[in-house]
Amino acid sequence: MSKLAATSPALKTFHHLGELSIDEVRALSARALELRSGAAPANLSGRALGLLFLNPSLRTQASFQRAAQRLRMDLVNLQGDRLWALETRDGAIMDGAAAEHVREAAGVLGRYVDALGIRAFAGFRDLAEDLADPLLNGFRRHAGVPVINLESAMWHPCQALADWVTLEQLKVPRRAKFVLTWAWHPKPLPQAVPNSTLCMATQRGMEVVLLHPRGYDLHETVLAEARRLAEDSGGSLTVTDDRATAFAGASAVYAKSWCSLRHWSDPTAEAAFRAELRDWCVRPEHLAPGARFLHCLPVRRNVVVADAVLDGPASAVLEQAENRLHAQTAVLERIFA
Amino acid sequence: MSKLAATSPALKTFHHLGELSIDEVRALSARALELRSGAAPANLSGRALGLLFLNPSLRTQASFQRAAQRLRMDLVNLQGDRLWALETRDGAIMDGAAAEHVREAAGVLGRYVDALGIRAFAGFRDLAEDLADPLLNGFRRHAGVPVINLESAMWHPCQALADWVTLEQLKVPRRAKFVLTWAWHPKPLPQAVPNSTLCMATQRGMEVVLLHPRGYDLHETVLAEARRLAEDSGGSLTVTDDRATAFAGASAVYAKSWCSLRHWSDPTAEAAFRAELRDWCVRPEHLAPGARFLHCLPVRRNVVVADAVLDGPASAVLEQAENRLHAQTAVLERIFA
Amino acid sequence: MSKLAATSPALKTFHHLGELSIDEVRALSARALELRSGAAPANLSGRALGLLFLNPSLRTQASFQRAAQRLRMDLVNLQGDRLWALETRDGAIMDGAAAEHVREAAGVLGRYVDALGIRAFAGFRDLAEDLADPLLNGFRRHAGVPVINLESAMWHPCQALADWVTLEQLKVPRRAKFVLTWAWHPKPLPQAVPNSTLCMATQRGMEVVLLHPRGYDLHETVLAEARRLAEDSGGSLTVTDDRATAFAGASAVYAKSWCSLRHWSDPTAEAAFRAELRDWCVRPEHLAPGARFLHCLPVRRNVVVADAVLDGPASAVLEQAENRLHAQTAVLERIFA
Repeated sequence: MSKLAATSPALKTFHHLGELSIDEVRALSARALELRSGAAPANLSGRALGLLFLNPSLRTQASFQRAAQRLRMDLVNLQGDRLWALETRDGAIMDGAAAEHVREAAGVLGRYVDALGIRAFAGFRDLAEDLADPLLNGFRRHAGVPVINLESAMWHPCQALADWVTLEQLKVPRRAKFVLTWAWHPKPLPQAVPNSTLCMATQRGMEVVLLHPRGYDLHETVLAEARRLAEDSGGSLTVTDDRATAFAGASAVYAKSWCSLRHWSDPTAEAAFRAELRDWCVRPEHLAPGARFLHCLPVRRNVVVADAVLDGPASAVLEQAENRLHAQTAVLERIFA
Repeated sequence: MSKLAATSPALKTFHHLGELSIDEVRALSARALELRSGAAPANLSGRALGLLFLNPSLRTQASFQRAAQRLRMDLVNLQGDRLWALETRDGAIMDGAAAEHVREAAGVLGRYVDALGIRAFAGFRDLAEDLADPLLNGFRRHAGVPVINLESAMWHPCQALADWVTLEQLKVPRRAKFVLTWAWHPKPLPQAVPNSTLCMATQRGMEVVLLHPRGYDLHETVLAEARRLAEDSGGSLTVTDDRATAFAGASAVYAKSWCSLRHWSDPTAEAAFRAELRDWCVRPEHLAPGARFLHCLPVRRNVVVADAVLDGPASAVLEQAENRLHAQTAVLERIFA
Repeated sequence: MSKLAATSPALKTFHHLGELSIDEVRALSARALELRSGAAPANLSGRALGLLFLNPSLRTQASFQRAAQRLRMDLVNLQGDRLWALETRDGAIMDGAAAEHVREAAGVLGRYVDALGIRAFAGFRDLAEDLADPLLNGFRRHAGVPVINLESAMWHPCQALADWVTLEQLKVPRRAKFVLTWAWHPKPLPQAVPNSTLCMATQRGMEVVLLHPRGYDLHETVLAEARRLAEDSGGSLTVTDDRATAFAGASAVYAKSWCSLRHWSDPTAEAAFRAELRDWCVRPEHLAPGARFLHCLPVRRNVVVADAVLDGPASAVLEQAENRLHAQTAVLERIFA
């Protein structure tokens, strides 16, 4: 284990990468790259990891199963569609759809396992509710064991850490230009990935450009958090809707679609709002020489990004996906350090 | 392992706690408490446990996964919504919804695993069918390996055993007053838990009060079984609809909602029948000094029981849930004793 | 391990049994029977098997979980209904239902595991598409690790190998008469099983009779493949719609229902087309003395086959199911030989 990781205190929660210091993230990233290069994972035999997926998952599910296996952990795997709706509001009179309160669900699972991963996307019913990240925070408050965010309404820290690892692996300099660009998509998607990507790149100290059409701002609290992280790391954050200047000279282009905050609970209005924006698809001409293309996957080919980008040498998407495994193994080691 | 458990014959089935002698249940409970206190589980390496969930599950699924892992068993986990409907009637011409007969499903799974847990709730189509517990009994007849009831139409023995363990853990005296009370709920629920709770408490020798509004009788065969168990154990059973006298002096109050037998296959009539009964919610004033509150979970807060009860010192619901793990570990040990 | 298996090269894919030489199949079958008789499976500790079920499964899921456990492999188990639709067409503009391309899904999973099993039934939208087996072939092209077919649009090689093993176990002679008969069923079913059964029996060198009503031909490419295999093995293939002559003197009768190629994407027309064919159900009088009855399961009793056949001594269906476990264990050993 790397020196820094070995001497750092155990992680109590893994909710948003920006809650960790830059040194902590660097140590996790370094450890992930060691693991990728063949270092033996810690032996966490006898420890149990619970995973509760309230939304679909391919990479997260597969990579956490593998991470737990490589660490010799026991794994309890629960799928939300085999459960019932969970209530998160304190004091609720539960005569509606929800059959169990997060207080009990978290409290019970915390009796069975030593750490708990939860996937709970934005509900798109109410922006204020999603901004409060109610399910993840409910589990954090009531589980009594470390809770790992497997993508919540607000954050996707496992993806952010894997992306950081990928930038290190590909030797993209810390001061390089990093563009996070909105892309058109037939459905309104949550903001957890763009929120986390923006904060990851600013925390790493990069010259970050957030590129999106008007109306696709990320939430002001996220922008403030990204600016705080940029200040700490010596990086910068610029917001623009001008693609030409944004892409020029970029070392990394990260594409992602997300729903406008203006139409959060109104998919029809959102669809109309973005109707003219189908051209927001990353094509080869958008990539400066040597630039890398990143995306968290799943990605819609020839909608979010052209085949020629994904199938060309610029694409780092499979590296990102592989690094999910190594990053998460490093996180689990740190939780049980 | 406790002396008694070590010398008892292996369990061939675990369908209804009342099928075991009082001594056998006491031995299982004692073993569960040893395991809870840190005793090493048996090593059942090389044995495989199959779990088939034809209905949703949180606690049962997680706690059986953990029990199998602690015993080093291999685990085959199957979810009913990834299968097809199962036929249970002998001689059926299977040209309807069911794509496989329980004879084949059980026979095949019995070739792969050494014990099989099945969850199959009441279907609410036909009371006589549910009373016959057709899926569980079909698997018992055709699997050729021990079958564990993970909650059937009629019984939930794992919950009952965990509840017995909890009463022992909390030192609720065997002769104390135990109230099982009906509660209002927006949906008609099965009777497996109240059936098993009633029989567990009478089998333990308690002064049992079954409290429910008129029309919410449990089935006469269950009441007869509870009376038989009370007679064997020296306990008693009283049925009443008077909450004041029922709750007075109780050491334990167990709340649960269930569907009236009168409206078993008619949810609309059932909803009307219970419309005036929303006041049947356990509140702090219902608990005598020192009384413990129990519920199998999931529970609807402020519908079945008030927050003030669940969040106060009377609540034993998380202990019950934790004891599921230890009770089931003890059951698996006894199956492979 | 048997001598032949030990010295054969590792399997790179397991898509259609006919792609293997007769000697290779015989070696796999012999090894499966050794495993059935108690031989110790290889120790593949440290290897990971991924399973992705895009369709329901009972036997395949349970038997592959057990095979992996007996080989001490790590297992990543993914269910398609917790994912999203996968695109298979090159160059597609993915603005429809599919959220991920098989290129990425396969590429990512191939980074996490050492072999990948995929279940992907025929879609019944377009016959040409199903004949191309697009999902299985997509995973084969892009996973970068061996891909095991857990039943695709065209083939079910694990079932075919288990059936071969069963014929060996039951000492059905290689030159005996083998009848594959169509059966009536309330739903149009895919042809993967009849395709694989036909080819398995011809590859084994049997006197194979394909028996079906007019209009229920298997595809000409499959018939050509079966004839090629019969020629290699010294067996034969006859097609008939005459039940009396077909069943006479048969040593094995294998029943299966399938959809007519004429009505592939039109279930209403298919239902009308088969309306008069309910009599195509295997009854005791169809079995010659000593004949064995086979079916892949799940089977509809008294629709595809009469209770009296399934519950009598002729039935080999539970042996077939058990042999899935041993056959697949042998396949995994060969993949990692």
